[in-house]
Amino acid sequence: MSELISAVQVTPVAFRDLPLLNSVGVHEPFALRTIVEVSTASGQYGLGETYGDEPHLRRIERAAAALIGADIFDLHEIRRRVVHSLKQDTEVGGHGMAGMVTTSSTSDRVLSPFEVAALDLQGKTIGRPVSDLLGGAVRERVAFTGYLFYKWAAHPGQDEDEWGAALDPDGLVRQATKMIDEYGFSSIKLKGGVFHPDEEVAAIKALRKAFPGTPLRLDPNAVWTVPTSIKVGQELEGVLEYLEDPTAGIPEMGQVAREVPMPLATNMCVVAFDQLKPAVQHDAVQVVLSDHHFWGGLKRSQALASICDTFDLGLSMHSNSHLGISLAAMVHLAAATPNLDYTCDTHWPWKQPEDDVIVPGALSFSEGAVQVPTGPGLGIELDRDALARMHQQYLASGIRNRDDTGYMRSIDPSWKAPLW
Amino acid sequence: MSELISAVQVTPVAFRDLPLLNSVGVHEPFALRTIVEVSTASGQYGLGETYGDEPHLRRIERAAAALIGADIFDLHEIRRRVVHSLKQDTEVGGHGMAGMVTTSSTSDRVLSPFEVAALDLQGKTIGRPVSDLLGGAVRERVAFTGYLFYKWAAHPGQDEDEWGAALDPDGLVRQATKMIDEYGFSSIKLKGGVFHPDEEVAAIKALRKAFPGTPLRLDPNAVWTVPTSIKVGQELEGVLEYLEDPTAGIPEMGQVAREVPMPLATNMCVVAFDQLKPAVQHDAVQVVLSDHHFWGGLKRSQALASICDTFDLGLSMHSNSHLGISLAAMVHLAAATPNLDYTCDTHWPWKQPEDDVIVPGALSFSEGAVQVPTGPGLGIELDRDALARMHQQYLASGIRNRDDTGYMRSIDPSWKAPLW
Ligand SMILES: [Mg+2]
Ligand SMILES: [Mg+2]
Repeated sequence: MSELISAVQVTPVAFRDLPLLNSVGVHEPFALRTIVEVSTASGQYGLGETYGDEPHLRRIERAAAALIGADIFDLHEIRRRVVHSLKQDTEVGGHGMAGMVTTSSTSDRVLSPFEVAALDLQGKTIGRPVSDLLGGAVRERVAFTGYLFYKWAAHPGQDEDEWGAALDPDGLVRQATKMIDEYGFSSIKLKGGVFHPDEEVAAIKALRKAFPGTPLRLDPNAVWTVPTSIKVGQELEGVLEYLEDPTAGIPEMGQVAREVPMPLATNMCVVAFDQLKPAVQHDAVQVVLSDHHFWGGLKRSQALASICDTFDLGLSMHSNSHLGISLAAMVHLAAATPNLDYTCDTHWPWKQPEDDVIVPGALSFSEGAVQVPTGPGLGIELDRDALARMHQQYLASGIRNRDDTGYMRSIDPSWKAPLW
Repeated sequence: MSELISAVQVTPVAFRDLPLLNSVGVHEPFALRTIVEVSTASGQYGLGETYGDEPHLRRIERAAAALIGADIFDLHEIRRRVVHSLKQDTEVGGHGMAGMVTTSSTSDRVLSPFEVAALDLQGKTIGRPVSDLLGGAVRERVAFTGYLFYKWAAHPGQDEDEWGAALDPDGLVRQATKMIDEYGFSSIKLKGGVFHPDEEVAAIKALRKAFPGTPLRLDPNAVWTVPTSIKVGQELEGVLEYLEDPTAGIPEMGQVAREVPMPLATNMCVVAFDQLKPAVQHDAVQVVLSDHHFWGGLKRSQALASICDTFDLGLSMHSNSHLGISLAAMVHLAAATPNLDYTCDTHWPWKQPEDDVIVPGALSFSEGAVQVPTGPGLGIELDRDALARMHQQYLASGIRNRDDTGYMRSIDPSWKAPLW
């Protein structure tokens, strides 16, 4: 019984995003994603979702063409074909991380949506949820984190959005209150690296006061020096669950780790398998934020989980702005990962509910968690009208590469990336 | 669609073995194994094979009882139940390694045959070979190593066996010639730790002369001191593909590794996940011999493979005396492991062909390799008459625990375990 790939449809889409601030600028009015739909001769389809930047999109299209005729159960063959399709690739960029530096593996980034789609197809073929293909769900619900951002009240020229401004501790506490009211999250992360560290420390302390028992995380995206990182870490002793990427570089994270009382987490200095050995040698991080979009899909993310388990590293989950296919994949992976030690990040609350490519209803939040779908595959359905609408939105948006810095400078020409 | 376990049959068996010498004595006339047959409500069965020692057999029986009602796709649940079944276990031993010290994980040893049986069942249920459940075969044939032993001509009181004696370099060259003639192996391993290291060095040099291009390995089962290990390693520069467990202990292996020119391999100092971090920290070994029987089954052995790949460790495969179910499982695992860098060990030539519990024909050697079965599951069938016969042989053998040392001393009361 073989199930061969007969067609792969690759569709770039855009969805509305809010002016969320970070160390490289501000989110543009639209976020990009690429949707892959992998079909088999027997008429099934499987879904994957990945970054939307143009060089990445072109790599995805090249890989898609190479996958025709591959068996959906032969993930090793799918990986070989993806790697081979990248052999002539001379483009740079397209990693979907805006101006942030990443050393993640191009082949793993390109493989990811196809691997997820293949698992979706496997599950549909055998009548099993993807979590079963990953060894079985160890939890029925996957808990997420309330992900706070400093933000403007609106994109320039638009009306104030429903979240309003958050540019100081009070604004962030308001944002957290609204987010927790609506989603029920029981942990909070603040995207920092926007204001002076003293202001961000004050914000964390205000959140601690407003939400006394709630685990808190702070992630300045590596724009602090080692001394600043150590100072902040020591000031926030007993307050942070973990401090995420305070500074850049594995040796530098190791220096910080030795001086601060809380675990250091990363989705920046350990983003590919070849960085795990140096990270362990430097004892640089205590928590790895996995992300199936750049770790090569769900099975390779499970390999990462095994490595974390074996080398006494904590495991959490990273997020970029994403749609429902990614959420479903994250939920299945998290459900089938016994040593997932922390609630997962998600940008979900920042997305308009109607901006998606899947039929609504399969995934919803209650008490900060998503019920793991138990239907075959990912347990979601493609909404082809919505996909077409979101693709039109992509065409109309004019955005082809995520560029938080360029957008910020179009508003504030004097803006410079911070380093404290 | 759920496939629940409705019954588990546990059957100890014995098969004839030859007087193979090692550092803890000599193989007894019969080797023990335990066969598990896991059945589902829909009438399918899956097979697993593991050690036959009594404490292990009792643990397997306890775990078997705990698995009724578990879903064959829920490997995490199967593992939880196995671990829970061991909670009241106060017995020691039963690791199937004769007098050799092992720090392998009891729960992983007990889990292994049930995991293999569950994968066999999954494959049969969905019409896919086990290799597909492991990501797809990356090779159609799995190459094995000609595994030489010093041996007596016969068990005391028996006629000379077909292999005859091998107690010196000439005898080993004769044995290798016969084994390669019959099986076509293109690499050779010698089980050492039997005679003085000088004699074993001479044997390896004789094998090098007789088989000039053939990779050679030597495994004295850790009965050498650090200085002896270094001396032997330096004497065999350019001759050995790898030196396996010359000495005991992770720090000590690290000391040897720094002074010898060839990679060090192990199935003794790294036999469980919690030993990988210290092994990496000490740079103690360059090759890990995986073994699904003590690493918790095929999926966890794949996690080990990912770890080896990530931490620049070579990967090979260990063997104990085994039957066809284990061979099938080893072949599927090896086929679906891209970074299997070396040919696999097997004791297969030392077994009588008619001593097995599976229907003949599914697995055969040509040119030193076994074709990967492509039928559903493991691709083998249980021969119930043979199983009953082998169980009778178990009952009649009187052997309940592997005891190479006790058997040796029954023949030579003055025998003492060596340390050079
Ligand atoms: Mg981060
Ligand atoms: Mg060995």
